Amino acid sequence: MTDKLLKDLFDQKVQVLNLGLDSMAAALEQQGTVVERLDWQPPRKIMPNLMWTKDGISIDDANREACKRIVDSGAVLVGMGLARDMIPGMRADLILHAGPPVTWERMCGPTRGAIMGALIYEGLARDEKEAEALASSGDLQFEPCHHHQTVGPMAGIVSASMPVFIMENAAFGVRSYATLNEGLGKVLRYGAMGEEVYARLHWMRDVLYPTLARALDALPHGIDIKSLIAQALHMGDECHNRNRAGTSLFLRAISPTLVRTQRAAEDTARVIEFINGNDHFFLNLSMAAGKATLLAAEGVAGSTVLTTMARNGTDFGIRLASMPGEWFTAPAGEVKGLYLPGFSEKDANPDIGDSTVTETAGFGGFAMAAAPAITQFVGGSPEMALHTTLEMYEITQTEHRDFTIPALGFRGTPLGIDVRRVMESGILPQINTGIAHRLPGIGMVGAGILRAPQTCFEEAFTAFQKNFCEEKEKNT
Amino acid sequence: MTDKLLKDLFDQKVQVLNLGLDSMAAALEQQGTVVERLDWQPPRKIMPNLMWTKDGISIDDANREACKRIVDSGAVLVGMGLARDMIPGMRADLILHAGPPVTWERMCGPTRGAIMGALIYEGLARDEKEAEALASSGDLQFEPCHHHQTVGPMAGIVSASMPVFIMENAAFGVRSYATLNEGLGKVLRYGAMGEEVYARLHWMRDVLYPTLARALDALPHGIDIKSLIAQALHMGDECHNRNRAGTSLFLRAISPTLVRTQRAAEDTARVIEFINGNDHFFLNLSMAAGKATLLAAEGVAGSTVLTTMARNGTDFGIRLASMPGEWFTAPAGEVKGLYLPGFSEKDANPDIGDSTVTETAGFGGFAMAAAPAITQFVGGSPEMALHTTLEMYEITQTEHRDFTIPALGFRGTPLGIDVRRVMESGILPQINTGIAHRLPGIGMVGAGILRAPQTCFEEAFTAFQKNFCEEKEKNT
Repeated sequence: MTDKLLKDLFDQKVQVLNLGLDSMAAALEQQGTVVERLDWQPPRKIMPNLMWTKDGISIDDANREACKRIVDSGAVLVGMGLARDMIPGMRADLILHAGPPVTWERMCGPTRGAIMGALIYEGLARDEKEAEALASSGDLQFEPCHHHQTVGPMAGIVSASMPVFIMENAAFGVRSYATLNEGLGKVLRYGAMGEEVYARLHWMRDVLYPTLARALDALPHGIDIKSLIAQALHMGDECHNRNRAGTSLFLRAISPTLVRTQRAAEDTARVIEFINGNDHFFLNLSMAAGKATLLAAEGVAGSTVLTTMARNGTDFGIRLASMPGEWFTAPAGEVKGLYLPGFSEKDANPDIGDSTVTETAGFGGFAMAAAPAITQFVGGSPEMALHTTLEMYEITQTEHRDFTIPALGFRGTPLGIDVRRVMESGILPQINTGIAHRLPGIGMVGAGILRAPQTCFEEAFTAFQKNFCEEKEKNT
Repeated sequence: MTDKLLKDLFDQKVQVLNLGLDSMAAALEQQGTVVERLDWQPPRKIMPNLMWTKDGISIDDANREACKRIVDSGAVLVGMGLARDMIPGMRADLILHAGPPVTWERMCGPTRGAIMGALIYEGLARDEKEAEALASSGDLQFEPCHHHQTVGPMAGIVSASMPVFIMENAAFGVRSYATLNEGLGKVLRYGAMGEEVYARLHWMRDVLYPTLARALDALPHGIDIKSLIAQALHMGDECHNRNRAGTSLFLRAISPTLVRTQRAAEDTARVIEFINGNDHFFLNLSMAAGKATLLAAEGVAGSTVLTTMARNGTDFGIRLASMPGEWFTAPAGEVKGLYLPGFSEKDANPDIGDSTVTETAGFGGFAMAAAPAITQFVGGSPEMALHTTLEMYEITQTEHRDFTIPALGFRGTPLGIDVRRVMESGILPQINTGIAHRLPGIGMVGAGILRAPQTCFEEAFTAFQKNFCEEKEKNT
């Protein structure tokens, strides 16, 4: 507490000190009381120091194994296809969404908007009213992308006829999937609807997808996206909210073959222009690459490392390597950010999207020190970007072997969020993100940064402890 | 002097301390004397504090004007053409070279090699023997690129039928020119000769040049290279020895139009592959852009700011804004660097090329803090890269308005080398550079860093003082 605040209290210029819930302060202020808000958080729970499971597994060793699998993973773009043909379990009456499971009733505005838009795009509804009726009818199923080896940015909606990238982690025999990035602004993944949204999606399906797919089919080894991420981290990207270098490197890699396999030169030109016009095009590729590497760590017994962080705009959810089937959730957080002209934080939906797969896989917000220029897009300062990466080393198991940060003397990025370290340090994972309008149908309103919420980490820790560290009570 | 050295002297383990010329130490060592070399430089000359010319011009004001012109300059790639048609004063019997003027007799190996190679490329000689005879016959003229609004990396050889970029600084009504970058290794600009060198140059003239030129002709506003440099500085380039981002951004800018204006798809694919295969392709564009902006400052009366730093492999030369016609030279320095496999510093030619136009124009070595990953190519460390940029602020007039460094909180790059500040501080300009083999015909052997030599700055300062600050003695 500052001397000035003490003096203000003494002079009764400040009448009430508020700790915790802001609603209390706001209520008092409405009654004319002068309130000073103190920066305060409830004390962290004291958690036990978990070292071994009851089966005698060293948790440190398990976490090392999980991270080794992530690092040893490859991520190669080997081709494309339609969601219904490629994604395991995909079907016409299934809609995939970002984040942990959520019902239509609890879904946020942008997720509802994106689902309604997808139904119109698919021809299952003629207008928004029909789409809303169908979505709420119970005739459709909604499941997380993450349940189908898929990741989707923002609302993350995937419907059956959307084209997807196929990302292969050959070292572990797994594949991941992601749709193609539409660009910024009034786009489906931010919950936007309308003719321009559907027209773009149809062009992406009818021109962009076959053009790219033909080129990929002609590339005998695909395109090594993991290598492009490593290079982009040396070129000012963190590969979550800054993807200008990654997008450039992807274009360089595919362009000659695009030209060689083209059917119409004008289509090729428009495809290159579309990608060139969208510095976030690489995001969906970096997300799928992150997912492909994290899949390799799912199921490592005794590991407290996260293999999933994802948000559906209502809940923030995490999963541990040792419990890949179980979500631990907390309310999605508020994003502190920079807004597009005409919008402000009162328009913002809470944190949303699967793009936190990048932070989980050791880049994105965790590699902000590599991307000081990103602060022009998400806010903050280059010093903060540097500090953030340094802080993330406190909650991660190791440093990435293949992803390095030149400005830190080529130190590896912080990799493997250990729920134990999050609990011990009280440091929560850094997230860079876009911001969607909270109402369906509008779209992007800004971009910003925030930390993951604490309670889902507490729950995951407690569940891990209960499942793997405590002897079960015996029935006598 | 360290305690250990004092003890060694006392014990007569060291018999002689050597200051200055290393040849003295080497001669003594040959006679079996134990010599310890001390890091020593002759004391700097005390220079007067120049503030005003004898005509009453404020030198600070003049330098501000010179830098304002550089900053206010544009640099747009507006087209291409053959050297003989585009470069003012170019003709069949003229060969342009990097750096200050130099005769055939005093030329270094790589410059001679590149001239001989150019004569074979032009069809003026059938083999190296004929080329050497013609080059030394007196029938050809050799002039600096800089005397023709042109810049050339390394040997910087330009002959009449080579294609050149046309860079326009519309704000000041001037144009600059540069050839196209061949790539690294066995290439003409590093003094290499041989069939693969000529075949590549012919393909560049016959396929690369017309393909790019058609696209540029179809772009109504050309390509804004100054803007690409500004972006590349946010993507880990310093645009002298690291041009990966610049090359990527250039490809992004031109590719759609390349496709739209193509005659044969395979040519387009090969052109994109060639540029994609050469991360230094952007260097010649960044150099021409630097030159276009510096031309605007030539002739500013009373300015002590450099408008030229250039090396011919024998001499290092500088020119001041106020004396654009006068070169001040010193022996070209030795480069400290990283070598390609099979080569070492004993193979290295002294510092060579016009590429120091980048440092003169406020990027290159002066913007190393923006490019920590460059240290993998030229040596040094990210800390050194940061420190170098900070040091260059000590010898420059101002900070660039349009070129900024994210890691320094978006501070402008150090711009406008002031010969007075160099003299006052003893800090010499930082240079990043490639290293050519010292013999003709071989090519690139490495890349590295060095500082500009001191004596040419002393001479420039003294000449400026004599010409503009001292009253002439009157004849009585």
